[in-house]
Amino acid sequence: MEKIRLGMIGGGPGAFIGDAHRRAARICNDYELAGGAFSTEIEKSRELAEKEGIDMARCYKNTDALIESEKKLPPGRRMQAVSVVTPNALHFTQARALLEAGFHVVCEKPMTMTVGEAVELAKLVAATNLTFALAHTYTGYPMVRQMRSIIAGGALGTIQRIDAQYYQGWINSVINGSDSRIAGVWRLNPAHAGASCCMADIGVHAFNLIEYATGLEVSEALADLSPVKDGISLDLDGTVLLRFAGNLKGVIRASQVCGGEENNLSIAVYGSKASLKWSQENPNLLHMPSDTGPATVYRPAHSYNSQLAEQSHTMPCGHPEGIYEALANIYKGAAKSIRGEEYIRGEFPTVLDGVRGMKFIHAAVASNKAGNIWVKV
Amino acid sequence: MEKIRLGMIGGGPGAFIGDAHRRAARICNDYELAGGAFSTEIEKSRELAEKEGIDMARCYKNTDALIESEKKLPPGRRMQAVSVVTPNALHFTQARALLEAGFHVVCEKPMTMTVGEAVELAKLVAATNLTFALAHTYTGYPMVRQMRSIIAGGALGTIQRIDAQYYQGWINSVINGSDSRIAGVWRLNPAHAGASCCMADIGVHAFNLIEYATGLEVSEALADLSPVKDGISLDLDGTVLLRFAGNLKGVIRASQVCGGEENNLSIAVYGSKASLKWSQENPNLLHMPSDTGPATVYRPAHSYNSQLAEQSHTMPCGHPEGIYEALANIYKGAAKSIRGEEYIRGEFPTVLDGVRGMKFIHAAVASNKAGNIWVKV
Amino acid sequence: MEKIRLGMIGGGPGAFIGDAHRRAARICNDYELAGGAFSTEIEKSRELAEKEGIDMARCYKNTDALIESEKKLPPGRRMQAVSVVTPNALHFTQARALLEAGFHVVCEKPMTMTVGEAVELAKLVAATNLTFALAHTYTGYPMVRQMRSIIAGGALGTIQRIDAQYYQGWINSVINGSDSRIAGVWRLNPAHAGASCCMADIGVHAFNLIEYATGLEVSEALADLSPVKDGISLDLDGTVLLRFAGNLKGVIRASQVCGGEENNLSIAVYGSKASLKWSQENPNLLHMPSDTGPATVYRPAHSYNSQLAEQSHTMPCGHPEGIYEALANIYKGAAKSIRGEEYIRGEFPTVLDGVRGMKFIHAAVASNKAGNIWVKV
Amino acid sequence: MEKIRLGMIGGGPGAFIGDAHRRAARICNDYELAGGAFSTEIEKSRELAEKEGIDMARCYKNTDALIESEKKLPPGRRMQAVSVVTPNALHFTQARALLEAGFHVVCEKPMTMTVGEAVELAKLVAATNLTFALAHTYTGYPMVRQMRSIIAGGALGTIQRIDAQYYQGWINSVINGSDSRIAGVWRLNPAHAGASCCMADIGVHAFNLIEYATGLEVSEALADLSPVKDGISLDLDGTVLLRFAGNLKGVIRASQVCGGEENNLSIAVYGSKASLKWSQENPNLLHMPSDTGPATVYRPAHSYNSQLAEQSHTMPCGHPEGIYEALANIYKGAAKSIRGEEYIRGEFPTVLDGVRGMKFIHAAVASNKAGNIWVKV
Repeated sequence: MEKIRLGMIGGGPGAFIGDAHRRAARICNDYELAGGAFSTEIEKSRELAEKEGIDMARCYKNTDALIESEKKLPPGRRMQAVSVVTPNALHFTQARALLEAGFHVVCEKPMTMTVGEAVELAKLVAATNLTFALAHTYTGYPMVRQMRSIIAGGALGTIQRIDAQYYQGWINSVINGSDSRIAGVWRLNPAHAGASCCMADIGVHAFNLIEYATGLEVSEALADLSPVKDGISLDLDGTVLLRFAGNLKGVIRASQVCGGEENNLSIAVYGSKASLKWSQENPNLLHMPSDTGPATVYRPAHSYNSQLAEQSHTMPCGHPEGIYEALANIYKGAAKSIRGEEYIRGEFPTVLDGVRGMKFIHAAVASNKAGNIWVKV
Repeated sequence: MEKIRLGMIGGGPGAFIGDAHRRAARICNDYELAGGAFSTEIEKSRELAEKEGIDMARCYKNTDALIESEKKLPPGRRMQAVSVVTPNALHFTQARALLEAGFHVVCEKPMTMTVGEAVELAKLVAATNLTFALAHTYTGYPMVRQMRSIIAGGALGTIQRIDAQYYQGWINSVINGSDSRIAGVWRLNPAHAGASCCMADIGVHAFNLIEYATGLEVSEALADLSPVKDGISLDLDGTVLLRFAGNLKGVIRASQVCGGEENNLSIAVYGSKASLKWSQENPNLLHMPSDTGPATVYRPAHSYNSQLAEQSHTMPCGHPEGIYEALANIYKGAAKSIRGEEYIRGEFPTVLDGVRGMKFIHAAVASNKAGNIWVKV
Repeated sequence: MEKIRLGMIGGGPGAFIGDAHRRAARICNDYELAGGAFSTEIEKSRELAEKEGIDMARCYKNTDALIESEKKLPPGRRMQAVSVVTPNALHFTQARALLEAGFHVVCEKPMTMTVGEAVELAKLVAATNLTFALAHTYTGYPMVRQMRSIIAGGALGTIQRIDAQYYQGWINSVINGSDSRIAGVWRLNPAHAGASCCMADIGVHAFNLIEYATGLEVSEALADLSPVKDGISLDLDGTVLLRFAGNLKGVIRASQVCGGEENNLSIAVYGSKASLKWSQENPNLLHMPSDTGPATVYRPAHSYNSQLAEQSHTMPCGHPEGIYEALANIYKGAAKSIRGEEYIRGEFPTVLDGVRGMKFIHAAVASNKAGNIWVKV
Repeated sequence: MEKIRLGMIGGGPGAFIGDAHRRAARICNDYELAGGAFSTEIEKSRELAEKEGIDMARCYKNTDALIESEKKLPPGRRMQAVSVVTPNALHFTQARALLEAGFHVVCEKPMTMTVGEAVELAKLVAATNLTFALAHTYTGYPMVRQMRSIIAGGALGTIQRIDAQYYQGWINSVINGSDSRIAGVWRLNPAHAGASCCMADIGVHAFNLIEYATGLEVSEALADLSPVKDGISLDLDGTVLLRFAGNLKGVIRASQVCGGEENNLSIAVYGSKASLKWSQENPNLLHMPSDTGPATVYRPAHSYNSQLAEQSHTMPCGHPEGIYEALANIYKGAAKSIRGEEYIRGEFPTVLDGVRGMKFIHAAVASNKAGNIWVKV
């Protein structure tokens, strides 16, 4: 089958997230990397292009140049989709330009800087009927997908509590380091990161995971955010109380100052009959404690899983797949959409998930600024 | 060594907590059960006394009768300490009467119904110089004690976040059962349980664990509590945001409606250099993830532990001790105090811990009632 | 209910196993410690008696003195059962004397030094109709009992492989220490320990656990044992291949030189339909992986467990009980037998389990001596 | 950088191991798939070639055709390396032909059917100076590599026991199914699988892992193998006692009939000072229990790991990589060797590891056939 010709904005030498996207695209095997504007410095961009074996004529100096040149190529050679893996502040204008020029887009999160931008992108996607996939990578794990399927099937009874956590500790060495060290981290700079560091970077993953796994929407949030250290202007830590329709409540806890934590994203959805618990650092287990019998533990590559979960794992059981494969599953879902094939809702996050994420981030920031009051999401 | 003569109020046939206290007292081997008022029904009280092999003359109809009769006995026969293991609403008057009559007291938690009562008890304990031990059983685990010792030693650096959880699911079958089932549970009745169900029953354990392990005091709380189901008048679920001195924030999550959870009390204390994580359902492990090296895992019965931790485990390493032994450790600490022996602060929770607990419960309830605002603890 | 009057041979000051037996007896609450010969040095024996609050007249200088004096007491005062917690070499003569004098016996393992002695004890128990309980403590854990119940119920299908392990590391510091350190450890001295160190001390627990959990008998063994270090005369490490009736095979691995292991006794029984896995260091979980669905995890204090398992756990679910409670369950079972009450086979290990254990130890030693050949068990 | 042109023998549509090799090659990004003989049926081979986007002229009917045609291509177009992912019986002749024709080889395990063939291949590799990488995938995991580095550094003290396990249950449904089901599994047919099923398929992985992690050689083996069911002619289960130089002993346990086990490969190496334990189903943890302090737990992506381990993980810490990435690490190591770059011994298994593996398999079979006696490896 012919590969989808993929371009990339960002992801130059040393940028781990761009490398992750390229690996994921290669794993799923539906794409070939056709070109890109990998860096604001053209030499670095070319260094990457050479390493990847890309035609140097398709190594562009920026997004505009990429669009202009690619549009001149015949349809059978032209890029079909472009991955946007630049810092937060650039996502919106780049994604908008690409969509307007007719390219499908895979975009890193958070999708934009403001809710308004997010809504504008969503309208554009609706108008153009292009595929827009947002890299909420964790929704690509088979057991997260199984969680979604089980909950959709009603096995938990009434959902009575939702609790999600995303704890890291990596920023400790930054904030306890020198001032120049702090100045060198773009996530700590509102101009590049937007209104939030912790919530925009990782809290939004916990939020997305809740809405993905349960199919429910958070209606209101009350946030208590903290810069942790004097002199830091964005949140590095926070707790967000959640309300859903009915009596349901929940909580998101996110922090980048939890010394020794690596990438501890976890979710628990508690029901009247049973519950589901999943943790990203051991992603191939899905725990289902129950009120009425022994706990059960789901694992990938078994016929007892849903189709959505099973098609997301390719090795036989007991052979652990990891985060690259999770992202590859999202690329796989996007490829189906790009090709006009049928796919299951949940195979990749869309622009609407991006809108929800921006609403969450801004509700959290607004709630905190107003003195920890309830704000609509 | 002569045993301490112990009485008991409550703990009749079928009451699991009274049985737990008797077992704990036997395990630590510093007490003999001399008598008690085990039930409001004297026949049941006698049934228990007979099973325990207690002199029927010391099986009393109530607290007053116990006090009156025991005070007439010669000092060498008279009870020295009394365990109060009745429902919440009775703790205060019984404990006060016992203290006023000169008995040392071991009391179940929550210590009282109001902060005022708690403060009154604290004054009484100070005035009488008697021993008052509160059954915050989880502080009896060796690895909780090791946690306290490590934090006191400063190994975590600056504490940057505190997160404690107490999740259970047992009340699901009650609230999703019949009305008469609900009516039969005293914890759901404000007259017997006080202002709170979930926070008073289990949230307070998480609170106590935080203050015990870190040596810090919670300064303010913002609570979002939920009765979960229409028709329930007390909280069965809640999240409480916490503030401490300085920039430090934290969170307590507690719920009795987490389907399939058993007794999932966990605490994580995150520092700038390293962190500590402990979970009650696997109590003999203490995890210490670190920013600067591999994680370490502490276990009991090793010379690398503190004296406070080591004297709290009697078997050789690898032989798991459990919750009865944790409670026995508290009885052991109280026995040292009763006998006037030296002990380490932290060997048993005192009346002051009880005051703190009542302040927490009432701050949480007040915050929730006022629309989720910050309240001093 | 009147307590069973219990005596004890061995278990003087500082002996941890005697202390464990006394705690277990107190936890189960069916016994009172009436006296004993706690040490070969009468001063030490008296020190223990005083600490335990025992009538000094019943603190005896040795087993013979105990028997002689106790037999003179009226039946209503006389000891009914005696715990033998001395070094291996003494079990046989002490237990025999006690049985011949009409006392019920609780005995530490290994039961005797030779198979002949074990068989003689078994005959004596049969002839006297007295209760003889062997302290295979691990069979007192609720989840081991649940394992036995599940296997007896046939849920595993055909058993196809059995694997048990008992790894410790405590002897490392001894054998890598000074010669005098080695000389001071009686387990390394054939005169006191018998034909084996590792297999007699811990291998036999793994063996007993296999026969207890599965209800099957090992028919043959091929052992490869190792003293690990030059100058040591007994095995500190070994692997024993097992054969059962039919095509079934298995293996026992035991070692005391596994640096950093604590008390890692584990068993896995693999069936054609499902399997069961249990580990002593996390005793309240029983894992049941399955060929036909998600794994299940059993825990104590649930109505889905068998009666044998459920009566072996007294706290509500999620409150971990440990090794003292396991031993208390064995004392509880023995108490039922002593009192002539009904009990379930499996509530305590009997003299026949002791005979099996001795056969295993001697088969392993004989196989190893003969150059690793198959020997009947 | 120019990609290495890779061919493949085997790995047609539906063959999971061929797909795994292709993914691994894509992940490591040093190869491009240039052609192959993917199936004995040319239509299937073409189906695969089309799916992969391969020039149909380089889709060959068999190994000979591939060699003949590729050798005619100019050096700059010709395949440089070929992956052999066919059933066991074909590895030897295919690998030999490829080496003789000057191609580097990546080969699935077991490398050959006999020790003689293995030795012949080793001589050929030595004579040609070509790269030969054997797919002992598990040695590609970062934490296995860290284990090797730690042991090489001497941190364990004297190694005193080695224990490796590989348990699966997948063959249960085959052997408990119909005769035709059994006939359809080539691993059960000696003509295709060789002298062994279980030991050749998975036992050899455990063996390789031991020699890889410790740097020690197994000197002798005593095996007890079992076909488990009447009518099966090869081993599906077995235990192999191991001897090393000095007093060191160990054991390998392998089985394909452990109901509910998935791919449970584990290794423990016990030393006089500390030990290391790793398990394939949770591959990003390396446990190091110790005699002298708390246990430590290593994880990937930390500067405390060795270079060999660190270069084998590309994501930041806490982002789990899995088995595809492990195989990719082996392809990466082979690529370095093919390109003449420097690499660390241990980056990929060589033909000598294949010789060792064949010696182990045949020693195990010979020992079992001779009645469980010691055989040199």
